[in-house]
Amino acid sequence: MSLSKEKSHHHKGRYNGKVPTSNLGPFIGDFREFEAFSDAPTARASAPDGTYLSVQMVDTCQQINKPQHKTASYHTPNLVVRRGQEFLVRVTFNRPLAQSDDFQLEFLIGENPSGSRSSLVVVTFNSRLGGPWSGRIVESQGVTVTLGITPTPDAIVGKFRTYVAIVAGTGMQRTGRDAATDLYVLFNAWCKGDFQGERGKLFNDAVFLPNEAERNEYVLNDHGVMYQGSFDAVTTHDWVYGQFERGILDACIYILDASQMPISDRGNIIKVIRMGSAMINSKDDNGVCVGNWSDDYSMGRSPTSWTGSVQILLQYAKTGVPVCYAQCWVFAGVFNTFLRALGIPARTITNFFSAHDNNGDLTTAIIRLPDGSPDDSNTMDSIWNYHCWNEVFIRRADLPPGLGGWQVVDATPQETSDGYYRCGPASIIGIKEGLLCHPFDSGFVFAEVNSDVVFNKLDRYGTLTPYWVETDYIGKAVYTKSLGSNSPNNITQNYKYLKGSEEDNRTMARAEAYDIERHHSELPETTLSVIITVGQVNLGQDVNLQVDFHNPSDVPKTIQANLAGSVIFYTGVRASHLINHNFTITVPANQMKSAMVKITADEYMPYLGTQRCMHFVVTGQTEDESVSTIKVLHLQIPTLTVTLSGLPRVQHQMFANVTFTNPFNFALKACRLVMEGAGLMSEKTHLYGVIEPQASISWTESFNPRLEGKRCIVAVMDCSNLCQVRGVACVDITP
Amino acid sequence: MSLSKEKSHHHKGRYNGKVPTSNLGPFIGDFREFEAFSDAPTARASAPDGTYLSVQMVDTCQQINKPQHKTASYHTPNLVVRRGQEFLVRVTFNRPLAQSDDFQLEFLIGENPSGSRSSLVVVTFNSRLGGPWSGRIVESQGVTVTLGITPTPDAIVGKFRTYVAIVAGTGMQRTGRDAATDLYVLFNAWCKGDFQGERGKLFNDAVFLPNEAERNEYVLNDHGVMYQGSFDAVTTHDWVYGQFERGILDACIYILDASQMPISDRGNIIKVIRMGSAMINSKDDNGVCVGNWSDDYSMGRSPTSWTGSVQILLQYAKTGVPVCYAQCWVFAGVFNTFLRALGIPARTITNFFSAHDNNGDLTTAIIRLPDGSPDDSNTMDSIWNYHCWNEVFIRRADLPPGLGGWQVVDATPQETSDGYYRCGPASIIGIKEGLLCHPFDSGFVFAEVNSDVVFNKLDRYGTLTPYWVETDYIGKAVYTKSLGSNSPNNITQNYKYLKGSEEDNRTMARAEAYDIERHHSELPETTLSVIITVGQVNLGQDVNLQVDFHNPSDVPKTIQANLAGSVIFYTGVRASHLINHNFTITVPANQMKSAMVKITADEYMPYLGTQRCMHFVVTGQTEDESVSTIKVLHLQIPTLTVTLSGLPRVQHQMFANVTFTNPFNFALKACRLVMEGAGLMSEKTHLYGVIEPQASISWTESFNPRLEGKRCIVAVMDCSNLCQVRGVACVDITP
Repeated sequence: MSLSKEKSHHHKGRYNGKVPTSNLGPFIGDFREFEAFSDAPTARASAPDGTYLSVQMVDTCQQINKPQHKTASYHTPNLVVRRGQEFLVRVTFNRPLAQSDDFQLEFLIGENPSGSRSSLVVVTFNSRLGGPWSGRIVESQGVTVTLGITPTPDAIVGKFRTYVAIVAGTGMQRTGRDAATDLYVLFNAWCKGDFQGERGKLFNDAVFLPNEAERNEYVLNDHGVMYQGSFDAVTTHDWVYGQFERGILDACIYILDASQMPISDRGNIIKVIRMGSAMINSKDDNGVCVGNWSDDYSMGRSPTSWTGSVQILLQYAKTGVPVCYAQCWVFAGVFNTFLRALGIPARTITNFFSAHDNNGDLTTAIIRLPDGSPDDSNTMDSIWNYHCWNEVFIRRADLPPGLGGWQVVDATPQETSDGYYRCGPASIIGIKEGLLCHPFDSGFVFAEVNSDVVFNKLDRYGTLTPYWVETDYIGKAVYTKSLGSNSPNNITQNYKYLKGSEEDNRTMARAEAYDIERHHSELPETTLSVIITVGQVNLGQDVNLQVDFHNPSDVPKTIQANLAGSVIFYTGVRASHLINHNFTITVPANQMKSAMVKITADEYMPYLGTQRCMHFVVTGQTEDESVSTIKVLHLQIPTLTVTLSGLPRVQHQMFANVTFTNPFNFALKACRLVMEGAGLMSEKTHLYGVIEPQASISWTESFNPRLEGKRCIVAVMDCSNLCQVRGVACVDITP
Repeated sequence: MSLSKEKSHHHKGRYNGKVPTSNLGPFIGDFREFEAFSDAPTARASAPDGTYLSVQMVDTCQQINKPQHKTASYHTPNLVVRRGQEFLVRVTFNRPLAQSDDFQLEFLIGENPSGSRSSLVVVTFNSRLGGPWSGRIVESQGVTVTLGITPTPDAIVGKFRTYVAIVAGTGMQRTGRDAATDLYVLFNAWCKGDFQGERGKLFNDAVFLPNEAERNEYVLNDHGVMYQGSFDAVTTHDWVYGQFERGILDACIYILDASQMPISDRGNIIKVIRMGSAMINSKDDNGVCVGNWSDDYSMGRSPTSWTGSVQILLQYAKTGVPVCYAQCWVFAGVFNTFLRALGIPARTITNFFSAHDNNGDLTTAIIRLPDGSPDDSNTMDSIWNYHCWNEVFIRRADLPPGLGGWQVVDATPQETSDGYYRCGPASIIGIKEGLLCHPFDSGFVFAEVNSDVVFNKLDRYGTLTPYWVETDYIGKAVYTKSLGSNSPNNITQNYKYLKGSEEDNRTMARAEAYDIERHHSELPETTLSVIITVGQVNLGQDVNLQVDFHNPSDVPKTIQANLAGSVIFYTGVRASHLINHNFTITVPANQMKSAMVKITADEYMPYLGTQRCMHFVVTGQTEDESVSTIKVLHLQIPTLTVTLSGLPRVQHQMFANVTFTNPFNFALKACRLVMEGAGLMSEKTHLYGVIEPQASISWTESFNPRLEGKRCIVAVMDCSNLCQVRGVACVDITP
């Protein structure tokens, strides 16, 4: 017996009807085309010339509406408008309107639309009371009437069906269902408070964003970058959001349908965003992307092989089955597409050294065995080299004033966010101020950027003793793309005050008042300190580590040191062990002494797999003190060269060429190249079984630009033994 | 491919180890019995007489600890203690302790216990640094040492394994695993702030409840009542919580295991409660109970057939499969058992006329066709005659001061509580004050007790016009059991101020500031009013309704009236249509005029099924005004007679006899009688194929009381054509 199949049966005593949760349908006839009035037949005056009014044609005026609503880029035959802003519909009747004629427009969304749920909206053009959307006759020319319709700034977002109904004799005569007049209504970042609500107060759309440059970037830009690598070796990762590509808007609405979110909730910005955060990952709900943090991506595509969100969303909407596989930047990229497609201002964020704390306190616990080497079996917390999430810019009418604006949302499945796999929206101002008593999940995000790293020693009795705390390691930098350029904008100060400042102390005190546990044990006093330094290293080169011990005391110190090196996933988890090197070093009083440790390419290459990150921890112990430090090394790899040629004009043929030369002394195997570009080219794929050492490849595809402006082609190559070889080329397309 | 099976594989790059989520196990050896120290072997002084210390026996001192911890009622061979309070363990060694002896107790919970996650706790009895639980030697007599151990008031709650370890020579010598020394640690409502935390501040257990009478009721009472019926005909429903019955504590821990809640989260009161709220219903997570609000309970037991929580919890723990079927009072009853079993102060609540609002605003919309009759297809909201939920008494350290104390939690699957099937904890003070900006789900609960009922007229154009609002219908009364008696305690004033008071206006204004939408349309002015009155009616008797129209105006009014009557589920949803009666009545100026409407038993009985509730709406219209009102009628049924005989002493045989005479003129069919009593008798069942009109039945069972005090036997009979025939008898059991 399937429980879900039984649901409607088990609930017949709970609802008068099924709660409508499907926007895309299919739907069985909304209305009869002629609907008799239920009261007694009333004789009505016929029109002056003796014929009843009827509709010849309904035109959604796309040429006028789309530029006005900034929706011309959506690749759909239907009109797309933003709520809270007037759009025009031109109705051609069989004869000119007369004074006594009575007609209305009806907009329906979902199954069983209802006026009490705002899913059936009646718009009238005379004094008679209509639904909440306002209507006016803009122009009347002969048999053609141009109507202006303004959805309220809290209208349901999704795909509406449009009908024209005329009061004729003893009933309503309606147009038939015509898919060509279906209408998408989106959130509207341009809609500023000229709307008078029920309570007589003016209100904006909940996503109103005052700055035009920001709206262009955060709603309209369909290409972006995310930052990866490590804090001191940031890499730029181009991503095709592609929210305007064919089928993407429908795919985003399909996601809400698949979530069974009630249609009547879909005008509520917080509910839509929170549901999106749950649905972009497949956990709990058969959502869009399946997370996979292994080295085995059989039965799907590796997370590193995607160039953007488009293929993922189209595949999900087509199959209804979660798409394999994603890691944090894929979740963030797809979520960003979802948000921008629906008109919500959104951006992707990278937090470098992000705490992934298994119990949501402010402590990331690292545990060392008595000899100083790592104790993997007891260390549960991890520090991600970076973690990507999203921000949305929304009003928080559910919270006290001052907490609106940018909010963190995260679609990567986390363990401790309230027991379910979703996170946010959490007010960033609330996080910065330590006001963690408001929904949603702000304590969790606070820990991601503010945790202390506590090094614990496991003694031989089984008890743990903290001996070293790094308070400034986690949340080292928070980056997002700059407006109008690919360079990173460091927005760390949006999330936190300067460590140790008066404001920071106030924030930490507030956080503790809201039951966020911090580390407060007394630590043994230490005078020693240790630093690991290493330059940038290309994949295949030797690694030279310099370990500096500083002894500012007046006595020489003899240090028992352990250097543990591993290959790690970007999540900080060990993929394979590299070295465990014990050495003794004596540092004279008031001096620094260095130990050099070399790891040759021959030593590390066999353990690398497809990872490119190494993690070193050094622990130094004297009789009475212990010190530790961590160093993450991100190996550099070559890039693809992408070149574009041809006349850069809309609908003119152009060519994209990708070249690459294998610089390694080993062959690259099972290489999959893909390229795509928002508004330029849908995803193309090319496979190479093997690329021998020093061999070159070259691959050319043609395309016809669909949209104007600065546009880019992104290419990526994934081989079985080398991932994320990337390239990008951009061009200005003229109309 | 099963996604869930793939989980651990897909996540190997995310954790150093699997997050422990199983408390009950089974577990593979925690420790080796002899664990050599990892550093170089150290010569240790042997004991004075030349023998190493070893353990002969570990005694958990149940006779002393259980009364101290108020846990003697738990039917388990293991010790049960409440955290934050000392318990004793008596260890018998092979010889008296010497000064140089070094030993420790170790308490482990879940797989891979770890000191950094508080799931491995080392308790030492000398100066050496130990885990957070404190230890002291209470008494040392010869070879026997009595140890006092105090878990911290934030310790993990669940089942711990106990080891004694002795430092012997070059390693630790441990006792073997002994299930007899396993130890349950619970939340502690008795634990008042004598605990010094890490930050030097004193802290209570998060569930500390100052009043002893309240602790006895809300933690220790294993029998209770819930209120049902309708506001003006409240019925008392006895419920066997049975939190001390054999297997129940393990079943509650099993629920947390089934939820895959990390072990390290299980000391956090809010996480445990919120997870419980999600897990008591089967939605999302294969939790305990399957909701069913139909008339078809095949493949399971009907919600009305349960006498308590015990069978449901035992069946769930045994099979791991959700139990069929539950409605709100079953969810509330089972949740209450779960909470009290774990030591959390909890009570069940009934809200009469509870708004079940599909979009969480403050409006329950009732839609009428132009003739005044109900429009079922457009009415989505329903008003439950009553809805049962729970309250827990906890500290809310995550919120600003003043919002702790009683909190609403609700395990009945709701549609709009944040997209998932759980609700709360929501601060009741926050609800009363309109402070709805804090987690969890307080806006949703606020609507359940504060919604306005708005009557809308659907005009013939398809537009909706509100014409009548009842602001004082929803949340008519909130009841819970009184301390130490079965009479209801009306706690409505805990949830809201008097309607229309200054404080109430302030609360409503705050709620609106936090984006809770209220109804503000202008209504047509009305002078007319209407009331329906009906006395108590027994099932099988005729119903006589009196409809009074009041006309306080100075002109006579002729009213077109419609009375619509239905059989409804307790959820307010129509089960079947009864009457739709149109009539005209003229009310002279400044007068009241009544219409009498009679519905005979022959008219309604064929439509009743197993429901016992009728719902009447009268709508009156004149040319310029409309009025409406609702009346719910709950039909009364006979009860079972339960009598107890025998000497009322612990472990002496007694007898319970249930008798019933069918008073109806129809046979009762397929009757299932059950009885049980907490501390007296586990569930017994007896079936009767048919009980003819006027026939009597009598059924006797014997039992041996296990617990002393006032104890009750609850019986219920469910037939295919009559439900919820109940009876109860209580007796004082002496030791």
